[in-house]
Amino acid sequence: MKKTTIKDIARELNVSTSTVSRALRDSYEIGAETKQRVLELAQRLDYTPDPVALSLLSSHSNDIGVIVPDISNPFFALVIAGIEDVAFAQGYHVVIYQSHDNYEREVMNVRHIANRRKDGMLVSLATGTQDYAHFKALHEQGFPIVFFDRICDEIDTHKVSVDDFEGAYQATEHLIKQGCKTIAHISGPPNLLISRRRLHGYRSALLDYKIPIVEDIIMSSEYNSQEALAITRRLLSSSVKVDGIFASSDNIAIGSHAAITEAGLSMPHDIALIGFSDLPITGLLNPPLSTVAQPAFEMGRSAAELLINLIKNPKDDRVSISNVLRTGLVVRESSLRIQ
Amino acid sequence: MKKTTIKDIARELNVSTSTVSRALRDSYEIGAETKQRVLELAQRLDYTPDPVALSLLSSHSNDIGVIVPDISNPFFALVIAGIEDVAFAQGYHVVIYQSHDNYEREVMNVRHIANRRKDGMLVSLATGTQDYAHFKALHEQGFPIVFFDRICDEIDTHKVSVDDFEGAYQATEHLIKQGCKTIAHISGPPNLLISRRRLHGYRSALLDYKIPIVEDIIMSSEYNSQEALAITRRLLSSSVKVDGIFASSDNIAIGSHAAITEAGLSMPHDIALIGFSDLPITGLLNPPLSTVAQPAFEMGRSAAELLINLIKNPKDDRVSISNVLRTGLVVRESSLRIQ
Repeated sequence: MKKTTIKDIARELNVSTSTVSRALRDSYEIGAETKQRVLELAQRLDYTPDPVALSLLSSHSNDIGVIVPDISNPFFALVIAGIEDVAFAQGYHVVIYQSHDNYEREVMNVRHIANRRKDGMLVSLATGTQDYAHFKALHEQGFPIVFFDRICDEIDTHKVSVDDFEGAYQATEHLIKQGCKTIAHISGPPNLLISRRRLHGYRSALLDYKIPIVEDIIMSSEYNSQEALAITRRLLSSSVKVDGIFASSDNIAIGSHAAITEAGLSMPHDIALIGFSDLPITGLLNPPLSTVAQPAFEMGRSAAELLINLIKNPKDDRVSISNVLRTGLVVRESSLRIQ
Repeated sequence: MKKTTIKDIARELNVSTSTVSRALRDSYEIGAETKQRVLELAQRLDYTPDPVALSLLSSHSNDIGVIVPDISNPFFALVIAGIEDVAFAQGYHVVIYQSHDNYEREVMNVRHIANRRKDGMLVSLATGTQDYAHFKALHEQGFPIVFFDRICDEIDTHKVSVDDFEGAYQATEHLIKQGCKTIAHISGPPNLLISRRRLHGYRSALLDYKIPIVEDIIMSSEYNSQEALAITRRLLSSSVKVDGIFASSDNIAIGSHAAITEAGLSMPHDIALIGFSDLPITGLLNPPLSTVAQPAFEMGRSAAELLINLIKNPKDDRVSISNVLRTGLVVRESSLRIQ
């Protein structure tokens, strides 16, 4: 089956191809009657415009690129669901890239998005990224970029995050109120702003409640369960006996949960455990995991709305919006000592 | 900063733009000396060709589209990692789409991939897909398509799957050998071939061991933990007392695991449980979940190799390859009654 082209339509109607092309683009240069004849025939012949050729004309692809560290992290999957929700409703297609927390891969993805004429990009930074030149250059050329979750403070554009400090403070305060005296923290990679803000929330809660901060029980892990399992084993075999753990993410907490169980310790009585994110799996663990809920879907919606606004109104980038969403404490059996 | 164009190079060297364009494409029509002058100046001015414009000339984008039902399923994330491993090594960029198990969304994704001049696509079918016309039309036009995991029997192209029948048979046989007498099966959606093949493996093992098949304890769930939790609650409250459950996927098994725990039953003594996939989380559950390992990363590698071969040698599509990978039993505490 041969694809219908503008030439076919032009031949059939005995007009020039440029007339057809302008009629299809609804140009003011073409009369209403001609437009109607062209559109009717185009529909009858099942003509679909070539979007690559069109994008050369219009410089718009209606594609949005999204870069996340790791699609297997359900948090990012939920954010992407929120992004798609807004984007599809406004006629944008979402194309997903993953950096695997690797700087070089992130740079490749950014180049691909710019080169393939996507209209804009939504980014959550890779752990390995310490240099932001690949974003800066594009941002200065006016390319629409919005950061979410793992945001970049050095680039003056719209950002969506949650109140990581407040969420971490609440989680730590909850453990204190459950009677924990020696609360460890397993933080994320220190070069990520979210890790530092959550660590700061933990420290502030201990300070406010006059609980001494023990540096030996503040550890750091990648945001994955396997490394957190190893780190928690090390924590549990150290000389300091902890009775509470605040993990910087649910993926870290899942590793801690397994290490505590493996050590024959009970949750919440020997150790009360709380994570951060409220991933769908947390409620299904044995015992179910307490956590800090992040509005992941809402984060995606908000980031997509800001980006599409930036694409449609490029002048609006003069004032950068930082949308900070609220977190909520979700108390389950893993930390609930006092009913 | 203005981007260098072919026009800038032509002006500087006092040649025509078509000479520059042909020199950059290494055309035989241009002499070696001119080619060298053009390439040197292009490099000095940091000229980068516009890939969209180039793809109109060459009809190759070096992009591969991948459609999976759900990126938050770690199985698909692992398959995609395998795809990326092969694709990047061969200079292809991987662009990820999700169908959310929805037929209409899958059709949109397929159109987007074809319209954006991707060189080929790798597909795992959506649960909701019962009609394959959107693939058939493209396949007949010679567009390279390879199916993996949730494959489509109606389209004669390369496919990569695991031996679902054999894996399911082994899982069921393992439960029988652990002394289970009344083994339930929570199957996946029946329109997916993988669900039917796993169900078939379960039935065959029971037949071979002369264990009566009880239709009331063969249930069906979407491949997600939340629905499986509800289905397993129903199973556990029914009049038939089961002492073993074979779940058609780990995501289903995670829901069953939570339902069994919630009912105050112990694994493996009250109920022995086994899943299918060997997702990273399974070893971290309490108790750790037995499962059937699928080589997800290898599946992705194999699918990408078949697709790239099809892109490079379009004539090779006359013989369709069905690559069936082997599964392996992974026995953990949730089913290990006899040490």
